[in-house]
Amino acid sequence: MREVGIGIAGFGTVGGGVVSILRKHAGDIEARLGARIVVRKIALRDTGKNRAVEVPGGLLTTRVEDLLEDPSIEVVVELMGGVDEAFELVTGALSRGKHVVTANKALLATRGQEIFKLARAKSVDVYYEAAVCGGVPIIRTLRESLASDRINSLVGIVNGTTNFILTAMAERGEAIGPVLAEAQRLGYAEADPTLDVSGGDAAQKLCVLAQLAFGARLEPRDVLTEGIMNLSPDDFRWGREFGYTLKLLAVARRCEPGGTGPGGQDLIEARVHPAFIPQGSLLAGVRGAMNAVVLRSEALGASMLYGQGAGAMPTGSAVVSDIIDLTRNIVASSPGRVPLPPEKALVGLRPHDEIRCAYYLHFSVKDEPGVLARIATTLATRSISVAAVQQREQDDAAAPVPLVFVTHQAREADVKGAIAEIDRHPATLEPTRLIRIESV
Amino acid sequence: MREVGIGIAGFGTVGGGVVSILRKHAGDIEARLGARIVVRKIALRDTGKNRAVEVPGGLLTTRVEDLLEDPSIEVVVELMGGVDEAFELVTGALSRGKHVVTANKALLATRGQEIFKLARAKSVDVYYEAAVCGGVPIIRTLRESLASDRINSLVGIVNGTTNFILTAMAERGEAIGPVLAEAQRLGYAEADPTLDVSGGDAAQKLCVLAQLAFGARLEPRDVLTEGIMNLSPDDFRWGREFGYTLKLLAVARRCEPGGTGPGGQDLIEARVHPAFIPQGSLLAGVRGAMNAVVLRSEALGASMLYGQGAGAMPTGSAVVSDIIDLTRNIVASSPGRVPLPPEKALVGLRPHDEIRCAYYLHFSVKDEPGVLARIATTLATRSISVAAVQQREQDDAAAPVPLVFVTHQAREADVKGAIAEIDRHPATLEPTRLIRIESV
Repeated sequence: MREVGIGIAGFGTVGGGVVSILRKHAGDIEARLGARIVVRKIALRDTGKNRAVEVPGGLLTTRVEDLLEDPSIEVVVELMGGVDEAFELVTGALSRGKHVVTANKALLATRGQEIFKLARAKSVDVYYEAAVCGGVPIIRTLRESLASDRINSLVGIVNGTTNFILTAMAERGEAIGPVLAEAQRLGYAEADPTLDVSGGDAAQKLCVLAQLAFGARLEPRDVLTEGIMNLSPDDFRWGREFGYTLKLLAVARRCEPGGTGPGGQDLIEARVHPAFIPQGSLLAGVRGAMNAVVLRSEALGASMLYGQGAGAMPTGSAVVSDIIDLTRNIVASSPGRVPLPPEKALVGLRPHDEIRCAYYLHFSVKDEPGVLARIATTLATRSISVAAVQQREQDDAAAPVPLVFVTHQAREADVKGAIAEIDRHPATLEPTRLIRIESV
Repeated sequence: MREVGIGIAGFGTVGGGVVSILRKHAGDIEARLGARIVVRKIALRDTGKNRAVEVPGGLLTTRVEDLLEDPSIEVVVELMGGVDEAFELVTGALSRGKHVVTANKALLATRGQEIFKLARAKSVDVYYEAAVCGGVPIIRTLRESLASDRINSLVGIVNGTTNFILTAMAERGEAIGPVLAEAQRLGYAEADPTLDVSGGDAAQKLCVLAQLAFGARLEPRDVLTEGIMNLSPDDFRWGREFGYTLKLLAVARRCEPGGTGPGGQDLIEARVHPAFIPQGSLLAGVRGAMNAVVLRSEALGASMLYGQGAGAMPTGSAVVSDIIDLTRNIVASSPGRVPLPPEKALVGLRPHDEIRCAYYLHFSVKDEPGVLARIATTLATRSISVAAVQQREQDDAAAPVPLVFVTHQAREADVKGAIAEIDRHPATLEPTRLIRIESV
């Protein structure tokens, strides 16, 4: 039977998941593929450590070069994480004509172009289902199922840590501090949660997704990115009054007609931020650490993929499905079967100032005549149309009065300008809170 | 450039969608495939009729044999519907070494085994993404992404017509008659809606899905099938009181340990029926004519695919994605790249009597002492454990008293036996209503 040798770099939880899935389903996989997938080498930092999955000592090495130099390894599986070393490994593998499976979104978001270019030049494949939302087959769907469709928007909950935190805040009314601490205790958040709670992780994933969905070429710094650390229980309460729940969304959306770029290209918006979404919407039902992506496309209309975003088995399973797909290509001598993302950008990026959406604006003002009128006028002069407004009666006359406006679609720069003006006024007691609203 | 010739049989709305998508995206598809997909012939009943999509008259024929006899046609796309003629065409194509794309669930549910067997013998491919839930890539996900996973359950809303009707009944409190009439007026239900409202359409789809998910070999008559015509606004009202909404579900589930069949095979339950599901659940958020399938598998845990179930463009798009995939195989000379469902059944079917789930039982009884106690005793003697019970006060002492029991997991035969016994008693004034409950 034809054997396809693979080498795995990185042997943490996901690597362990990959090896145990490959083992457990070996017979099944062989029967389906007519080929045997053989793990030839596993590179890791410390060969002495105890591991969840036992492997023969002879497989282990601390030198990733061993994977590159072994001619019997046709597929290199990169599970190291980080960017620089992973880039060295992946480009080393590609330049030797080896195929690559990677679960590394940071690598693809920042150096994907170089990697894809090299893969094209060498006629080898790069698969990366596990890089974004492990348990959700979003990469395969974008690469294959939607090959004959035109995607107009992609809106996702792509970070399980922040969704776990926001779900707990929404359901228990607690502040972010204790909920984050609990998430860390339960293993849903890392000791240093910055990458997750800042929206940075979601922005990396959005770069990878937007390239497939739109042919965009984005780096994380191109994405408008706001995290969740400033959200308060009060935001959730107000949202509920207006029929909303609060989620960290990753949004990439083709602009309405008229938003074409200099070269006649379409423009897209690319942003990651907390957003109010309608309580009854499908994404509102995505609870805990689950992930989901809603696509709107010309032919399919609305569709959604939902599943676990992380974890050894979901992510390991995505890696194995890539290895199986690659093995099919190898056995059939058909590398490059599904094309990599296009070399040239097919869309441009709308400047963040030009973003258009609906906004929730929470003003904290003195309880004195004329304040409401002045705010309404400031918004009106900047063409910001108001959809709803609410003012709560206060018991304490000296306390700031909360005054909430919900706007229709407006231009980001106009809204920011209005807030700056309103916040400069002495009747405004606290900085205005802005949360974008998505209808999804 | 390599050309791949296709022939299309059937030129209704889906056929029109296929041709217009292929045309519109021709440049894009060629760039991605390095091959041109050329429609060589379209077979239809009446070449004179006006159509939504204009095609050169020379392409049209009323003889499906023209597709089979044309050596330049490598892929036959079957969009005729029905079983017998479609079977002739598909097997005719396969036996001539042509690949097949079909959107015909009835064909696959009833004669899929013969078709797959012939395809295996001839080393050609059969693709059928559009046969089940057009806008939901469930077939590809089951065939490819989950190739290394073990699926434990599949629960879906797979019929848009009935979901449209049930959504309207739930949201407006109306009876099924007027809602069905409205669905027909709006084009969501056919003039003869029997196949949809009886659950028969969903049962056909479940056969196709269960074969991929479990390696089952089912025909529609093997599926426990109950339709929606007996549901009343009262059922929805009662459901709401218990926190449920009502959906027509297609369920295939691997039985708990101990449910192994004679040959040591696992058993599955296969059933289509109205079911109460928790109001906050993801499937409860699937409204109108939308479809969704929730999978639970060993590695991935819970996942869901959601999208439009029918319509020219979603279904056409699924057909085109199959044509593209097939073209990739043809260009790479790798037919059979993704294996067809296994030839032998990998699981058996649990007898319907042995099905275990939770039940909602609605008794209509005389308002007299001892009735509640007797019903409770009848259930208890059959090991049916009660999770909740509710009795409404009646203004009219002569009217039947509604008495609702919600049970824990129980055996279908025990529940049916208890109902038969209770319905025979003179204090029972109307036949007991049974609705199964799924936690999904």
